[in-house]
Amino acid sequence: MFEAAEVGHKLDKAGYEKEVVRLREALLNAQYDLLELKHFPVLVLFAGIGGGGRSETTNRLNEWLDPRHLRTCAFGERDDRERERPAMWRYWRALPPKGRIGIFLNAWYDELLNARAAGRIDGGDLQRGVQEIRHFETMLADEGVLLVKVWFHLGRDEQRKRLKDLLDNPLTRWRVSEHDLAQLKLYGRFRDVAEQALRETSTAEAPWMVVEASDPRYRDATAGRLLLEATRERLDSRSSPVRPVSAAPVGSRRDNVQLLRELDLAKALEKKEYQKQLVKFQGRLAVLMRRKRFARRSMVVVFEGQDGAGKGASIRRITYALDARQYTVVPVAAPTDEERAQPYLWRFWRRLPGHGHVTIFDRSWYGRLLVERVEGLCSRSDWMRAYQEINDFEAQLLRHGTIVVKFWLQISKEEQLRRFRQREHTLFKRFKLTPEDWRNRKKWNAYEEAVADMIDRTSTEIAPWTLVESEDKYYGRVKILKTLAKTLADAL
Amino acid sequence: MFEAAEVGHKLDKAGYEKEVVRLREALLNAQYDLLELKHFPVLVLFAGIGGGGRSETTNRLNEWLDPRHLRTCAFGERDDRERERPAMWRYWRALPPKGRIGIFLNAWYDELLNARAAGRIDGGDLQRGVQEIRHFETMLADEGVLLVKVWFHLGRDEQRKRLKDLLDNPLTRWRVSEHDLAQLKLYGRFRDVAEQALRETSTAEAPWMVVEASDPRYRDATAGRLLLEATRERLDSRSSPVRPVSAAPVGSRRDNVQLLRELDLAKALEKKEYQKQLVKFQGRLAVLMRRKRFARRSMVVVFEGQDGAGKGASIRRITYALDARQYTVVPVAAPTDEERAQPYLWRFWRRLPGHGHVTIFDRSWYGRLLVERVEGLCSRSDWMRAYQEINDFEAQLLRHGTIVVKFWLQISKEEQLRRFRQREHTLFKRFKLTPEDWRNRKKWNAYEEAVADMIDRTSTEIAPWTLVESEDKYYGRVKILKTLAKTLADAL
Repeated sequence: MFEAAEVGHKLDKAGYEKEVVRLREALLNAQYDLLELKHFPVLVLFAGIGGGGRSETTNRLNEWLDPRHLRTCAFGERDDRERERPAMWRYWRALPPKGRIGIFLNAWYDELLNARAAGRIDGGDLQRGVQEIRHFETMLADEGVLLVKVWFHLGRDEQRKRLKDLLDNPLTRWRVSEHDLAQLKLYGRFRDVAEQALRETSTAEAPWMVVEASDPRYRDATAGRLLLEATRERLDSRSSPVRPVSAAPVGSRRDNVQLLRELDLAKALEKKEYQKQLVKFQGRLAVLMRRKRFARRSMVVVFEGQDGAGKGASIRRITYALDARQYTVVPVAAPTDEERAQPYLWRFWRRLPGHGHVTIFDRSWYGRLLVERVEGLCSRSDWMRAYQEINDFEAQLLRHGTIVVKFWLQISKEEQLRRFRQREHTLFKRFKLTPEDWRNRKKWNAYEEAVADMIDRTSTEIAPWTLVESEDKYYGRVKILKTLAKTLADAL
Repeated sequence: MFEAAEVGHKLDKAGYEKEVVRLREALLNAQYDLLELKHFPVLVLFAGIGGGGRSETTNRLNEWLDPRHLRTCAFGERDDRERERPAMWRYWRALPPKGRIGIFLNAWYDELLNARAAGRIDGGDLQRGVQEIRHFETMLADEGVLLVKVWFHLGRDEQRKRLKDLLDNPLTRWRVSEHDLAQLKLYGRFRDVAEQALRETSTAEAPWMVVEASDPRYRDATAGRLLLEATRERLDSRSSPVRPVSAAPVGSRRDNVQLLRELDLAKALEKKEYQKQLVKFQGRLAVLMRRKRFARRSMVVVFEGQDGAGKGASIRRITYALDARQYTVVPVAAPTDEERAQPYLWRFWRRLPGHGHVTIFDRSWYGRLLVERVEGLCSRSDWMRAYQEINDFEAQLLRHGTIVVKFWLQISKEEQLRRFRQREHTLFKRFKLTPEDWRNRKKWNAYEEAVADMIDRTSTEIAPWTLVESEDKYYGRVKILKTLAKTLADAL
């Protein structure tokens, strides 16, 4: 993989200057076209061997492009907030929106490869990491992100020479960090690990481009050209390539819908009993959330259900039990412009809780499989791939130690009508009822099918759905609190 | 101050239910009017004595209002990121945008008063804190934020009784925290401190409203009514009240402008000497930034100067010396919609660096005193009060230990023309030249006057401006690097 980058590519000063004039203009034009169209973002990943000059090339691109529309993110050691959330959180937060170019330094590859080369993780961990990266990058590509992955390569002797040159000059000695010197010792191991990882992550959507880094002029001009070519090609191709999705086998739909229809909606609780149980489980929940162990965990609760099923009221019964500092309720409506300029999971990633906290989503990423599917707001291939993407997302949460609880609140079509009518007649409840609610109601069957598929394909062992019979409000609320308290107790 | 809130206000169940129906409808209407107009945000501060029920009232408002447009922030212990930035940072981040209602629990008052009551700070600290709060709230009010400050009061016996009731019931015991019990002991001290602080922060723009909290129905209904009345009054008054600004004495303008005109723009450096000095000071800067002491400090660098004065190029000479993980360059252009919905300093607060980091602003909050003043983008009273607001802002940075360096890059009108012409003739520099640049040039004198006033009134002892003779690029860049290195060395 690296042989072609050890042949001694060079660019003389005259050739460089001639190329740069042309390149700068073309890059600027591409940048402005991108900005005007706002069809997709460009994410440049610079990775490679220490001393390869990622930082210098980044400076160069900041000079060549209009820096006002370019965002450079160099990732360092993780801080508290980053450690308290799944590993990919900090990268999600920094993704460039449509129309912009982002440059990532020391992102997911460097972190993984350095950990393996230094022996902090084993071969199995590396394998799993590579697999996660593949899924993540495939998802980004499917969401329209143009990934430009550039690997700066130096031969062992080149790396040694470069560091020595820097060290010998008192004016540049400070550029060499201890990490660089440590990496020099691990050169062979790092190279082997990198070669394997690069091979396995060089996909059709996001191929690696290896650049020989020993000559700065060649390196900078080549990196600039690669960025230009990738961006220009996508700009000119007009439509972004849609990958065909091989539909994973779906269980017989009738069976799935049956599961919902067979829920015993007659289950009910007397008011007295309800009040007793409510306080009991609120108390239990509050005590659990104050346990020391929870101070090192976090929780995500998802509420989905038909319009009028009682999501808001159920959420309030939970939050009454909690200290306001411990929770955030995120009501999910149509995405804002800022959110639309990002992959659809972005707005959920940014709201993930830190340690000791719970985020309650009133509607969630499952909108992709429900409203977006039924209303045709995304293509069939978009929601088909979402099953896998969502399972990946939740698996990351769970592996990180986040407790995930998902509720589907089910009511009958008749009960929904009764509640809509009631809302119409109560002044302060009218805001809860919109024309959209009536429209959705007409698509009851389509939604039912979507819900059934969703539950079938995302109720995993590790993050199962809890179906809540919500025809009787009291019964539903108590079941929710009880489930939460039990899940929390089991997890702590 | 609290006597009127110890008379035993109560609301019976029937009266409460009747009032709530009316109140909910009116609150929802006000909320939707606010949302539609987007003229101003509403910030509700709930503060008071422990056990007063701030949290319960917040839950109630979440039930009465449409929670999708309501944002509740309960502040707890500070985390790393918050500790690494000035005290007000976390509140700035959470401000509601125009059109929205935000509720803050445990915000600036609770923090300050608890610290004083517990003896962690002395009377002088309290006094300074109160003063800061006054400035901050005045600024918010001037920026159009509607502040609704509600103090929940309980008499000493009421507080004891309320906590006892909660403790006696095994189902509610968990609601009482150790902090509540500690506060009970400090009741007298807390009350005295609070009384003084409330009196001094009850301003015309943001008066306190004290609510007796012993009866939950009375408390919730009153808080709701206060929010409603304040919001409705502002909604119906159409124009927001503009306070007359008493212009602080401005020095003779001619003298100020003279200062700029007398800069010796003939200062220059030979290329050889430049290159030597450049590397020398880049090296010094890099070494300083890697010192352990800087890992507990942070730095903010401001670049202002005429179009074409060389801000971008100077910034690159700094960043070449730094590890990409240590710095962020923030190019400041016209505000986005999100930024326009907030006080003008908001977008700068959110970019403040953490420990070990530097943020370089390519143009800054001084835009208020330059482009916004000259182009008439804000009113005269807006930019007149900005001198004080900006000095307050920088004083907060400095008191927190942030190193602040401000550069004004000065060139002559002739040199600017020469550089514009050059940009026109270099393909890849053309993007740097916009019609706006030519327009600004026509207002050279107006800008000169604004700059002179700015330097006169914001070049404080603690955060002085460095005027940079930038006619000769080499000389200017070296002066900048040298100044930075010296300021940093002095500070560490």
